Amino acid sequence: MTADPRLSMNQATIKYASLDEALQVTAQGGYRSIGLWREPVQAIGLDAAARRLADSGLRLSTYCRGGFFTMPEGAERRASIDDNRRGIDEAATLAAAGAPGSTAVFVLVAGGIPDGSNDLIGARARVADALGELAPHAAAAGVTLAIEPLHPMYGSDRAVVSTLKQALDLAAPFDPATVGVTVDTFHIWWDPEVLPQIARAGAEGRIATYQVCDWKTPLPADVLLGRHYMGDGVIDFATLTTAVEATGYDRDIEVEIFNQQIWDSPWPEVVARTAESFDSTVVPHLAASVRRRS
Amino acid sequence: MTADPRLSMNQATIKYASLDEALQVTAQGGYRSIGLWREPVQAIGLDAAARRLADSGLRLSTYCRGGFFTMPEGAERRASIDDNRRGIDEAATLAAAGAPGSTAVFVLVAGGIPDGSNDLIGARARVADALGELAPHAAAAGVTLAIEPLHPMYGSDRAVVSTLKQALDLAAPFDPATVGVTVDTFHIWWDPEVLPQIARAGAEGRIATYQVCDWKTPLPADVLLGRHYMGDGVIDFATLTTAVEATGYDRDIEVEIFNQQIWDSPWPEVVARTAESFDSTVVPHLAASVRRRS
Repeated sequence: MTADPRLSMNQATIKYASLDEALQVTAQGGYRSIGLWREPVQAIGLDAAARRLADSGLRLSTYCRGGFFTMPEGAERRASIDDNRRGIDEAATLAAAGAPGSTAVFVLVAGGIPDGSNDLIGARARVADALGELAPHAAAAGVTLAIEPLHPMYGSDRAVVSTLKQALDLAAPFDPATVGVTVDTFHIWWDPEVLPQIARAGAEGRIATYQVCDWKTPLPADVLLGRHYMGDGVIDFATLTTAVEATGYDRDIEVEIFNQQIWDSPWPEVVARTAESFDSTVVPHLAASVRRRS
Repeated sequence: MTADPRLSMNQATIKYASLDEALQVTAQGGYRSIGLWREPVQAIGLDAAARRLADSGLRLSTYCRGGFFTMPEGAERRASIDDNRRGIDEAATLAAAGAPGSTAVFVLVAGGIPDGSNDLIGARARVADALGELAPHAAAAGVTLAIEPLHPMYGSDRAVVSTLKQALDLAAPFDPATVGVTVDTFHIWWDPEVLPQIARAGAEGRIATYQVCDWKTPLPADVLLGRHYMGDGVIDFATLTTAVEATGYDRDIEVEIFNQQIWDSPWPEVVARTAESFDSTVVPHLAASVRRRS
């Protein structure tokens, strides 16, 4: 089987696969890259996970995920910051173990408004504070923190960072090699400012990862799981992909789909269907000049 | 019973009440203002509705709602534009029949991406076109069209206008007396740009109506119905209300809640609970100077 050389399987798309299973089915699907999640890595231990990744021959595109640091100062916040430091170290180890062209990108989801609070502005300020704490550690480890704006429907319980502009404003004080952004079509497709902000992200060197999947309504009862194969919804991948490619973005492109039906499907089928979906919606809009990874 | 003199009951909060029932329970609750919806008005006819409103002694704050004009040119689009013209005329008639201080505001929801399309940008352009068609009619009727940005979770199926900035940009070519915006806390609370855009809306004279209700997660299975009494969720009504009042906004403030449990509650209870919720969350932040409506 073959897949576009820049396509990366985000492990969450085959959520119930162990790390070994995910690496195997992804490589067998002709992919050259994978985005890993912390839980399956921790299930077998970091050192073992790094060896398995190295053995797979796959690149690492991102490591998911950290963040969740909107709580006020205290033990819980300290535990979160410490856990993020460990995540940064894990990302560095895994990226070093992956095939050449791996990128040490640690995806960050900000976290929601703390329970019982309605202080959105304060929660956002604590995201900025956390980045300030983590950036030196990330810089030392050679890891890029990729702030991910999440769709505003998650604005209260998962991420007080809701737009690409906001993520870029948060990243602005830091070296782009240390703090960048995640551009995920599912979260930003609706934003009237998305095209100028993608251009800005590129100009500032901050697109750490480009992730794709589709949006369709009605949303499922669990709105976390409303993601779809590209082409099954309303997102204009031509316009968004062209905008990202126009910035010179030349990294792998991840497909990250949270969808119960897809999770319940056989993994080889998901891997194949993901590649087909990518071929028909994204690949036609990739810059011809950016084939170096093949 | 009493209620703050600027509080207006949006009829959708007591969705199953007929127009007569809604007018009666609202007046009995001590309110001085109501926002009406087209369906209950049409159920008894415009002339009868205008008489009943006049008899109630209530002001009209808004008339809900028009819009839904993102489809491409053709019979369906013509029918929508014509229906919006009728809605404008109805708003003018009802505002004239309401108590002094009534405002002729026709709320517009843009409409979603047409079925089978992924052309979000085209759909948005057709909203601008529709405003251009309707503005002369609204100006002649003395009605303000109030573009309502809807939360981005409705971006595909209900409204391709998702932010206050976008609504203001759409309104910009027109006289503020003819095209303004709806500032509804449920839709815009998450927006990192909300405070400067509220200030801008005020400076440009475009806040046609301020509507309040709360946001809470988890969202219900039908995400349209995830609205709550103020204080039951995460929205910071102090900050948002202060920002709106700082612009000099001096109109009525509507409470518009879509919530199955509230719809299924006795109307007098809903009317009372709405007033209490308004008193505790919004009233403390009203500008003391803006009491003229009392």
